[in-house]
Amino acid sequence: MSAVSVEIDGAVGKILFTSPEDGNGIDTAFCDSFLAAAEQLGADDAVRAILIASDGRNFSVGANVKTFLGLPSTEFAQLALRMTDTLHPAVERFVSMEKPIITLVQGNAAGAGLGVALLGDICLVTPETRMLVAYPGIGLSPDAGVSYMLPRLVGLRRAQEIIMLEQIIGGADAVRIGLATRLVEADALRSEGLAIASALAQRPTKALGRSKKLLLQSFGADIKKQLDDEAEQITICAGEPHAFEGVNAFIERRKAHFV
Amino acid sequence: MSAVSVEIDGAVGKILFTSPEDGNGIDTAFCDSFLAAAEQLGADDAVRAILIASDGRNFSVGANVKTFLGLPSTEFAQLALRMTDTLHPAVERFVSMEKPIITLVQGNAAGAGLGVALLGDICLVTPETRMLVAYPGIGLSPDAGVSYMLPRLVGLRRAQEIIMLEQIIGGADAVRIGLATRLVEADALRSEGLAIASALAQRPTKALGRSKKLLLQSFGADIKKQLDDEAEQITICAGEPHAFEGVNAFIERRKAHFV
Amino acid sequence: MSAVSVEIDGAVGKILFTSPEDGNGIDTAFCDSFLAAAEQLGADDAVRAILIASDGRNFSVGANVKTFLGLPSTEFAQLALRMTDTLHPAVERFVSMEKPIITLVQGNAAGAGLGVALLGDICLVTPETRMLVAYPGIGLSPDAGVSYMLPRLVGLRRAQEIIMLEQIIGGADAVRIGLATRLVEADALRSEGLAIASALAQRPTKALGRSKKLLLQSFGADIKKQLDDEAEQITICAGEPHAFEGVNAFIERRKAHFV
Repeated sequence: MSAVSVEIDGAVGKILFTSPEDGNGIDTAFCDSFLAAAEQLGADDAVRAILIASDGRNFSVGANVKTFLGLPSTEFAQLALRMTDTLHPAVERFVSMEKPIITLVQGNAAGAGLGVALLGDICLVTPETRMLVAYPGIGLSPDAGVSYMLPRLVGLRRAQEIIMLEQIIGGADAVRIGLATRLVEADALRSEGLAIASALAQRPTKALGRSKKLLLQSFGADIKKQLDDEAEQITICAGEPHAFEGVNAFIERRKAHFV
Repeated sequence: MSAVSVEIDGAVGKILFTSPEDGNGIDTAFCDSFLAAAEQLGADDAVRAILIASDGRNFSVGANVKTFLGLPSTEFAQLALRMTDTLHPAVERFVSMEKPIITLVQGNAAGAGLGVALLGDICLVTPETRMLVAYPGIGLSPDAGVSYMLPRLVGLRRAQEIIMLEQIIGGADAVRIGLATRLVEADALRSEGLAIASALAQRPTKALGRSKKLLLQSFGADIKKQLDDEAEQITICAGEPHAFEGVNAFIERRKAHFV
Repeated sequence: MSAVSVEIDGAVGKILFTSPEDGNGIDTAFCDSFLAAAEQLGADDAVRAILIASDGRNFSVGANVKTFLGLPSTEFAQLALRMTDTLHPAVERFVSMEKPIITLVQGNAAGAGLGVALLGDICLVTPETRMLVAYPGIGLSPDAGVSYMLPRLVGLRRAQEIIMLEQIIGGADAVRIGLATRLVEADALRSEGLAIASALAQRPTKALGRSKKLLLQSFGADIKKQLDDEAEQITICAGEPHAFEGVNAFIERRKAHFV
């Protein structure tokens, strides 16, 4: 079985990591499947929100270090390149996908596994969650967008501290500093995550998805570009049925139905 | 009367929103007047600080949704484009204007009204202030620079939470997370705001204005560009009377007079 | 003696400011020496971590204002340009240098002195530290990368407050808001700083240095560029001895030796 399974549940696309026996470690097969999942769910208009979760004790321990063992340096370098060759397009697709993403992060989220965890526009953690970069320990620098998301989420100072001092951030601290959105007890993680994903999937998801994309690009944009992109996106939204329904429901003081 | 009035009070340019009866809602006339105000105050060298305030219970409830009612989607899209056509140049002018801006935000600041509130380099709120994006409720994505300012002010995680979970942020929380600068009792909002604006207007406002612009462009710039722009701006400052007065007052241990 | 001395202590390059009598003030000679130090330590592969400290009560009070006294405006402008001409290339080199930097900041860090203090990927302060921009007081806008680092470290709102309201941030507050990393008692500052620098110098410093550079460029980059740069850097890391040692030590459950 692939280490990454995809299931469509109503308007929610679920990505599940299914290799708990190796901590949902990331290897080339994982990267390829994760990219395929991004392409499938990105292209499916019926999917309005995405839930990323994993089986077992750990969300993902990151790269499967066993597969690196004994590799001569040139082959290790080739393998790193080979993995990012599909992992990074997957990350890019999720970041620019106009659908809200919810990640459910129990246990360890390390290295590239942390990168995947931070793809969540909403990221739920448990008291037992441990977030760590893990790269320095094996002589590597970040991949999977970790260096993109970390400073945006927690500011440069905390990002420097987490990487340079190789800190492990527990679930409660992760919420406090902005790595994660909410702390949930472990046995409620799936149900709470699904509830949020289902609720989001009933909101005007195109508008939310465009908002998400605008937020993720914001820091790198100058004011002119960001205003131009805002104008373009709100104009598209205004021309779609969700806005029509939203405005009329607002005026009629009734609950809107965004179908 | 226009919904946006401008008054020059000494070195302080005051912009006042004067449609409390509709919550200082934003329509095309408002956008046009707001742009005219930006152009007038930006061009007036005697204006050294800008105060933006509004009459009534709410700072601004955002777009005047009544004007959207019953519009077919193509016309709604045209209207959104028409509004951003003058609102966004106004926002851009205020962001790049080399003058400090103080916003006084009571009651609701929603949607584009939030965008205007966040233009303040100093933003005062009251315990009753409620900041919210409001866009998802009517099927829209942000405009008015909301997606530019939100992550810069509160970080990406809080920005995602505020938009995706459609949170309402009260005045005290707004200060705590960095949406606003200070909490002031409602009956002291105007006097406190005017005191700060007047105090800023007696400081070396060109230097403050250039600092403000450097801060607002910072995230999107690489280190080379930011250092080049810093060098350019400090060189201009050093060649002006305020720096001459500042240095001499510093050495002579007297209060500087920046006229 | 030059106001900036450089000493190599094992794998740690130490930069010491040695003009306590004028508060380690910054003049053209200081800027030139600081750039020379950046070039020397950047080019020396044996230097794996950099410690920046200063003698006396103050880290650095910033530009030596006495040297500005009585200058006609055109000459003051020329002097500002002359100083940034070597100070800014020095800042740029430290920011893009692939080595972790630790700054030890006692007493005042003001103006360009604050810019140097904030170059630390790890910045230690004491309860008596006072961080302030100081520029507005003498009619200037920021230099030395202050406008680059401030919003990245503490967010736009705090950066605006610090500059517009000319705040002085004490050591404990500096740590709380993210200007600094850790609070240390004054008499332990040197020993604690050296301990951290020495510890970092025994980690895989190329990987840490590349991580540092990725973090510092992150906000200004779009997701595509950041992912491409991450892939490039991790591939280089994977091809070097530190990664080989790190992976094997990890599998063998022993402490890695990154020599």
